[in-house]
Order: sequence, then C-alpha cells, then structure tokens
Amino acid sequence: MANIDYDYKIDKIKSKINSLGAKNVILQFPEGLKTDALMVVEQLETVLDDVNIIIDADPCFGACDLADNKVNKHIDLVVHFAHTPLPIKTETPVLFIEAHSSADITRPINDALKQLDDDVQSVGLVTTTQHIHKLDEMISLISSRGYEVKLDNGSGTATGQVLGCNFTSIKDLDVDVIIYVGSGDFHALGVKLFTKKPVILADPFKGTSRDIEDFYDRILRIRFARITKAKAAKSYGIIISSKKGQLRYELALKLKKLITDHCYNAQILNMDYVSPERLLPFDLDAYVMTACPRIAIDDSAMYEKPVITPDELEIVLGIRSWDDYKMDEIIIHDEQEGMF
Amino acid sequence: MANIDYDYKIDKIKSKINSLGAKNVILQFPEGLKTDALMVVEQLETVLDDVNIIIDADPCFGACDLADNKVNKHIDLVVHFAHTPLPIKTETPVLFIEAHSSADITRPINDALKQLDDDVQSVGLVTTTQHIHKLDEMISLISSRGYEVKLDNGSGTATGQVLGCNFTSIKDLDVDVIIYVGSGDFHALGVKLFTKKPVILADPFKGTSRDIEDFYDRILRIRFARITKAKAAKSYGIIISSKKGQLRYELALKLKKLITDHCYNAQILNMDYVSPERLLPFDLDAYVMTACPRIAIDDSAMYEKPVITPDELEIVLGIRSWDDYKMDEIIIHDEQEGMF
Repeated sequence: MANIDYDYKIDKIKSKINSLGAKNVILQFPEGLKTDALMVVEQLETVLDDVNIIIDADPCFGACDLADNKVNKHIDLVVHFAHTPLPIKTETPVLFIEAHSSADITRPINDALKQLDDDVQSVGLVTTTQHIHKLDEMISLISSRGYEVKLDNGSGTATGQVLGCNFTSIKDLDVDVIIYVGSGDFHALGVKLFTKKPVILADPFKGTSRDIEDFYDRILRIRFARITKAKAAKSYGIIISSKKGQLRYELALKLKKLITDHCYNAQILNMDYVSPERLLPFDLDAYVMTACPRIAIDDSAMYEKPVITPDELEIVLGIRSWDDYKMDEIIIHDEQEGMF
Repeated sequence: MANIDYDYKIDKIKSKINSLGAKNVILQFPEGLKTDALMVVEQLETVLDDVNIIIDADPCFGACDLADNKVNKHIDLVVHFAHTPLPIKTETPVLFIEAHSSADITRPINDALKQLDDDVQSVGLVTTTQHIHKLDEMISLISSRGYEVKLDNGSGTATGQVLGCNFTSIKDLDVDVIIYVGSGDFHALGVKLFTKKPVILADPFKGTSRDIEDFYDRILRIRFARITKAKAAKSYGIIISSKKGQLRYELALKLKKLITDHCYNAQILNMDYVSPERLLPFDLDAYVMTACPRIAIDDSAMYEKPVITPDELEIVLGIRSWDDYKMDEIIIHDEQEGMF
C-alpha cells in the first residue's frame, strides 16, 4: 500500500540507474516509508532489466545516515528517500528522492494566524523539506492578511528551511512571532530555543495549529532535571556515531578533555545505533551525546542515566549558565566535509 | 571486575600502539567481556601517553565483525578481543588478543571418556580457540587411555580447531567418536551435523561432559518444522550483512535467481544488525539468512516467520533431500578475500 502523499519518482530513478549503468542499487527508506519498499522495488523491476535492487533494512533517521559504504564495493548507486542531501562526501553516488507532501497548508496557517496577538506585525516563516515547495503559497497567504513575512537562508539550508538538526535559517530573524509549518515537535522546539520568540506550529497533516509554549516549558523542565541529575556524575560516557553526518570526533575529544580537566572520568563510546541496551555494560554515571542531537531530547525517557547534549554538559560543569541554554545542532559545512 | 581466565595482554597492546605510533585506537569486545572494557582502558591509559582510546559499544559477535572502518579515517588501530583472526583484508591494522582459558580440561575429558562404548578405538578431537593452547595436553590424556587420537587441520583453521562457522577441520575424520572440548552447543551441533558420528561435548567451564544426541535431535525437529512452514511461502527475504566476514553477496544473488526460477518472489535485504524488529516492515513469508549462520539456528524462536539457511532453502524447493541436511558454514578463503 502506497504511503499517502509520497511520489517515489520511479522514472527519475530509472534514468539515473541507466545513465550510471548501475547494476547493483541499494534503496534507503526512513522508518515511516519502509512498508512501501517492496512496492517500490516491484515498480522499478518492471521498468529495469538486469539490475539487482537491495533494500537497506537498517534504520535510517536522516540524510546524516547514508548507506554509501554498505555491501562492500558491490553497490553502484544509493537511492535515499525522503531526506534532503547534506554536504557529505560519499563513497558511492547517491540519488536523493525528496518527499514533497501534497497536504493542504492553507487551513493550518489560517488557524495559526487566528492565534496571533493584535500587535503582531512581522511573521517569521520556516518549514521542512516536505512542504518547502509550497513556500510561495505560504508567503502569499500570510502577506495577504497584512503581515510582513520574513525568511532567511541558513548555512547549508534553503530559504525558510529547517533541515535535520540545522536551524541556521531562523536564528537572526527580527520578527514578532514565528510560524513553523510542519509536524515535528523537535523542529518547533529548536525554532523556539534558537529565537526565544513565540512559535506557532501549523501542522499540514492535522490541519490545525498550536502554540508550542507548553511543550517548550515541559521539555525545559525535563532538561533541567537531567542536568541536575548529571551534576552528581563522577564518570561520563561520550557517545560518538560512525555515521558520517553524525560523527563529531574532534568535539568528543574536546569534551573528554573538558571533563577530565574538571577531575571527572570520561570515556568515548562508539555506537552506530544508539540504544539503552548498548549502554548497559558500562558503569558510567551520565552520557554526553555527540551523535544525533534528537536522541537526548526525544528519547530521554528511555534512558535510566542522564543523557545530555554538549551544551548541557557545559551547564553541568558550571561554565555555561542555564539562561544561556542552547539546543544542540549539527551544521554540516565545508570544513567538516573536508574531514571525510 | 575482571573476567575470570582472560588475560588482556596490556603490554602487547602497548607495544603495538607504540610501534605503529597510533594516536587513535578503538577496542572491540564480545558481549561477555564488555563489562571489563572500562578497566582495560584504565590499564592502558596508565601505560600510554596521548593516545585516544575509544570503546566500540556496538555488539561484536566474532572476528567476522570488525570495526576496521568505524569512526571514519580517524582510527589507527583496532584491538579486537577474544576472537581468532579470519583472512579478511582490513582497512586499518587490527591486533587480535585471543582468549586463552585456564579452565581445567582433564576433568571434563575424563568424564567424556567414561561415556565411550567399549568398542571405541579411535577418537576425533576438536576444540575452540579458547582451549587450543591445551591441545597437546588433551591428546596425551586421551592417548594415555589407549585410544588413537585423530585431528585434522581445516581450511583457514588450526589443527583440531573449529572457528566461528568453519567446521572444515573435522569433516573427513575417520573415527568412532568425536570429543569436542568447549562450551558452545552450536559448535557441538556443527561437529555432529558434518560428521554424523557420536559427539561428546566436554565442557571445561562446567567440568562435565554430555552426549549431544538429544540436543541434536531437538534442533533437527525444530529445523524440520521451520522448513515445513517455509514450504508454504510465496515470497522470501534474503538477508545479507555488510559485515565483511559475513557478506555473501554472490550467494544472495544466486539464491534470488533460484527462488524466482521456482516462481516465488525474492527480495534481498541488507541488515548490519539482524533482529526481528527490522523485518517487521516487510510483508514477506520467509527469510533466508546468508549472514551469520548461527542466527537461523540459535535465535530461531525469536522470529515469527521461518528463517532458514541457504541449504535449508534447497530442501524447501525440493532440490535437496532432508537426508542430505547440512549446517550452514562461512569458510573465509583466499578467493573470498579477493572480493574485498
């Protein structure tokens, strides 16, 4: 059964395979689309001859998580669905098939505009890859109601886009309120944390909107509790991931030095798939996550020991104040690309 | 707390690190030794300066499962504990620290000899890496009781050794009975399946021995049930692993052709970590495991759908008879090495 709204662009994939003369192709789907994988292969096999199509069944959480070095040297092309490319040098050609949702944005944005205070004049606008093809429509709609709409292009993102853990497109917006068009709490939270402005989440899938203030307060209370618990830690695990778009090895070394300079123990742990079970063998009091920034925030309740971000560690060690709380970000830029 | 019997050879690791001038080292432990990892790092750090030691916290199931391509290009040396090297070309130098158990072998072998029928004249002997340093002692002990001891060297294994999923050292032994010195049911089962001789497991850790006939019968009944269930399958997932020592891509392609030639559907799935959850998104009736041969046998009960070995697939498709049942093996040889 096809996933609603998603165009798998079979013809585009076929053209790429033919132009490369690819014989062995691996397909990567995020978890929500994996149930479509067999159907996509079936469609590809009807239009292609003599091509071996492999499905990557490992979890895939973003464009930071590429299968370009899998199945040894056998693979000629990776087709990566539903994420926007990051500037990562890959070992194999990668074709990104972005997800463009056809969900209506008018209803949720109208709903969001109803929530604005009377004195609001300027609105910051930000959305995700899924809805960014409707950015002009969003701007027109908000402008037509008399608001000044402001957008920015970040570092490594398109105008008005939040991408993965990169929030650079909204940081310097001088506006009264920000409308985030998308469905993910994590992105809305990031927008709030980086701007400290009122943020309204306009959800195209639900057709409604909501102020994320309550969610923001709840998350901050949880983070405060984790930071407080981590203050009692005498030993830290610093988690790194070997996934290219998530590897921050130099940061891990810096954090290790920072922790040992404060007279605590620190051990760097590599984990390609981060899960509570993989921490069980290690008798450490707290963990600092340098891999995916979402894990510390979204999966916090799954971990018995506090799992904190690099910025939160600075609060724990007393070198950053709670008032200067920051969301962790991975911004892939040229320098980082040079590392690979 | 140190794991009983295991010498981590800190001096040997130190020498290797110094001779390579390694600055970034990753340590790989099997699950049973991971709780020692922090202690090993502590010992290494007291004798080394300016070396970054990372612990690989991902599961490690054998020498087939090497961390030589982890943490991108940062790592200068992998130290792999408790497994014997396989002939795999690696991207980074790997130091293997084999596990040699000090457990007594006299008591379990004496116990095994008591179980032998009166007419037994020749005894085949086979053991694992952990106990192979006591092979001469084992031979003397069995010979001293009047038996002729026979051993063989396999392809890629030492004389008298079963290694991982390689049973070549016992296949052609013309003996009345085989004594397997070790603790793993999987290895004893393999010895039985490849020889069809009586096999006695002499367990140095328990100090006792047992005939594996009952275990063998039980496993065969389970395999028969899985094969019978798989006969109703209309669609197959063929599981491959990207772990170098487990990747049998050409075999997977051959199996796919075999299945489609029999008018069933087949899809190759890559899975670096094989688990029941990773199969959930795929609506397939049965799975053929080309990665670790132990998964189909040891973890059988965890999987709702039948997970069978390549040889079992041949039985399902009617091109191999049940009487010709074989255990799946991965024998790493020069040709395979050339693939990487």
